[in-house]
Amino acid sequence: MSATAAQVADGLASTAAACRARLAAATTEEKNAALLALSRRLVEERGRILEANAKDLDAGQASGLSKALMDRLKLDDRRINAMAEGVRQIIALPDPIGAVDSLVRRPNGLQVGRMRIPLGVICIIYESRPNVTVDAGALCLKSGNVPLLKGGKEAFHSNGVLVELMRESLAEVGLPADGIQAVATSDRAVTDELVQLEGKVDLVIPRGGEGLIRHITATATVPVIQHYKGVCHVYVDADADLATASDIAFNAKVQRPGVCNAMETLLIARPVAQTLVPQLFPRFEEAGVRLRGDRAIVELWPSAEPATDEDWGTEYLDLVLSVAVVDDIDAAIAHIGTYGSGHTEAIVTNNYAASQRFMREVNSSCVLVNASTRFNDGFELGLGAEIGISTTKMHAYGPMGLEELTARKFVVFGGGQIRT
Amino acid sequence: MSATAAQVADGLASTAAACRARLAAATTEEKNAALLALSRRLVEERGRILEANAKDLDAGQASGLSKALMDRLKLDDRRINAMAEGVRQIIALPDPIGAVDSLVRRPNGLQVGRMRIPLGVICIIYESRPNVTVDAGALCLKSGNVPLLKGGKEAFHSNGVLVELMRESLAEVGLPADGIQAVATSDRAVTDELVQLEGKVDLVIPRGGEGLIRHITATATVPVIQHYKGVCHVYVDADADLATASDIAFNAKVQRPGVCNAMETLLIARPVAQTLVPQLFPRFEEAGVRLRGDRAIVELWPSAEPATDEDWGTEYLDLVLSVAVVDDIDAAIAHIGTYGSGHTEAIVTNNYAASQRFMREVNSSCVLVNASTRFNDGFELGLGAEIGISTTKMHAYGPMGLEELTARKFVVFGGGQIRT
Repeated sequence: MSATAAQVADGLASTAAACRARLAAATTEEKNAALLALSRRLVEERGRILEANAKDLDAGQASGLSKALMDRLKLDDRRINAMAEGVRQIIALPDPIGAVDSLVRRPNGLQVGRMRIPLGVICIIYESRPNVTVDAGALCLKSGNVPLLKGGKEAFHSNGVLVELMRESLAEVGLPADGIQAVATSDRAVTDELVQLEGKVDLVIPRGGEGLIRHITATATVPVIQHYKGVCHVYVDADADLATASDIAFNAKVQRPGVCNAMETLLIARPVAQTLVPQLFPRFEEAGVRLRGDRAIVELWPSAEPATDEDWGTEYLDLVLSVAVVDDIDAAIAHIGTYGSGHTEAIVTNNYAASQRFMREVNSSCVLVNASTRFNDGFELGLGAEIGISTTKMHAYGPMGLEELTARKFVVFGGGQIRT
Repeated sequence: MSATAAQVADGLASTAAACRARLAAATTEEKNAALLALSRRLVEERGRILEANAKDLDAGQASGLSKALMDRLKLDDRRINAMAEGVRQIIALPDPIGAVDSLVRRPNGLQVGRMRIPLGVICIIYESRPNVTVDAGALCLKSGNVPLLKGGKEAFHSNGVLVELMRESLAEVGLPADGIQAVATSDRAVTDELVQLEGKVDLVIPRGGEGLIRHITATATVPVIQHYKGVCHVYVDADADLATASDIAFNAKVQRPGVCNAMETLLIARPVAQTLVPQLFPRFEEAGVRLRGDRAIVELWPSAEPATDEDWGTEYLDLVLSVAVVDDIDAAIAHIGTYGSGHTEAIVTNNYAASQRFMREVNSSCVLVNASTRFNDGFELGLGAEIGISTTKMHAYGPMGLEELTARKFVVFGGGQIRT
């Protein structure tokens, strides 16, 4: 059994690795033509997609999948059109490959620059939403990488057809169909083997629960980019405009509570707590947000439950909010340092020095002044699209777009120089 | 025993992690003052250094260390002055921390940029040369990182004093002495524990033999930057200037054969082989280079030994060279793809199209046109100094200088924006 998993993994990885050079050398025209073919096929072949998706939905129903998961799994015309539109947006993004930056002339006349190249074979492990298959595949293709796409078993048939459409699109424009492959097995032993194939697999991106990510990290010898939880904070400074603070905090918590860049903890500077709380908390309560506060908050707003120490480190992903009163910006930064997850933190202030300190000393993947945490997103930050949000500082930190799927090699243009 | 190793590792890592915020927030002035104090102490306290080094040399003699290793271990006035001078060069380098690039205004008025921040706690594992202790420590300090320095047991006493001088220099300027620590144990179990302390250790850089690197990679859950072997190629194109080709090939092989950016394989385009070989090979033979050739080479130069298939993938690090005749640039690129290690490759040509293709299609960490492979070095490429050469594409590819010891966080300057 284990030998078979190793063979399956090696077959997939060897096939992918053999396509690296061709995809790395593909022109922008070739890659965009394949993407255009894909966006067309997604629309034209929606019958095939919906048929496969129906099988997944039936299986999901039979296995008692939750309503939320069934909703994430379900494809319809609107969602298929959105996938096709997403692909067209990726066509419009600049091709990062081959771009040279920092070209300088050294004292000995050598011209030295750094050229962007693909990373190579990228194994992406994700869960039930089938649109990730198309997003991830299209971003890898545009950046000259070769993806191995391992979706969740709930979306097995849907992902199968979507990968098939991508392979047909590659072949249509003369690129190797094997430039995109599905890891079409629910045998976790295959994934465990894949993430140890140094030399054939260049990167693993697990997108999913913390358990999955920790398992992959412990198993892999190939580099892993991790996306752990987002325990995001908004700190309302003593010098904040309180109407702005109220709007930002409300937006950060309520606009879409189930995502990683939603606020989980609100920190309020002591001098403004008494004024802000009665302005803001009724809005939260009307929106159905359950409030958990420290002692000072519970005194000001008795309907808030007392927060436990566990609350401060919890990613609720729900209409629940922990709130603490802090003495000043030092206490706010210290709280974030203790309980934060390095994802997204915002300060609301009109104080110049406070904004500068927060910006400099809070080292989360995205730090904002006077804006909602919800802007930590590849599209909102101008990357055009994203393949995940890295919460570790290695290689990429924060949303990963096309550039984050590349490396830079040194290029040196000489005129016969030798070292002495 | 294992519990003790875990405790030692956790103590080191926790102490280091507690210094992260202070070192990350240190001003350039503070960091440069500490480096200046270090360069002064290295000179003033040379007595302490030489005394400790004498203990290591005695132990090395007693344990029968090779002459080459004894030479690498030995410190004297000249080498100590060179260490101090290296530290002064790092003072002169720009501080990467806090620099913001790519600041753009988004359609909604948000200003989005990317600010460089330190990686955090970096565990550097290296072998006998004690100057690495000072180089690595100084580079980490300048970039606001907190190193855990694990040197080879041969240099135990020397490294101990050098780290002590760094800690005294930090304390002298009011930075925490624990901002630099030695992993002063030869118990490998401690290192094995350290590289699994996610959250407290941010990066591991093993510099040493392939066995060490593979062991660390397999053990670590913390990200690892690998520096594997350099099987570097020079390809002499059909349109090369042969005098230039001869000089570059000779320099790449002979100037310092024991380093990772020295040429190990020479590829010669068939049309020029007959002319180049009799010009170049006598120079190699005079310099004591043993030549191993493919059939075409052995026919042209019968004193060359026949190369085996193993030769093409071998990093000799010695006055040995494998040479093959290739039909054209396609064959050269294919040979490099099969046998190269992604380190350094050069083409010698006056043909524009050939130079462009080689530059684009060879994805080694450094690709050169008409220059010696020996230029793949942090100092020569303009990084000022280096902490190693990465041969994997993640995070850094090629020489790592100060910038490669940083990450970039997103910084967002808003005016009350919320998501709708």
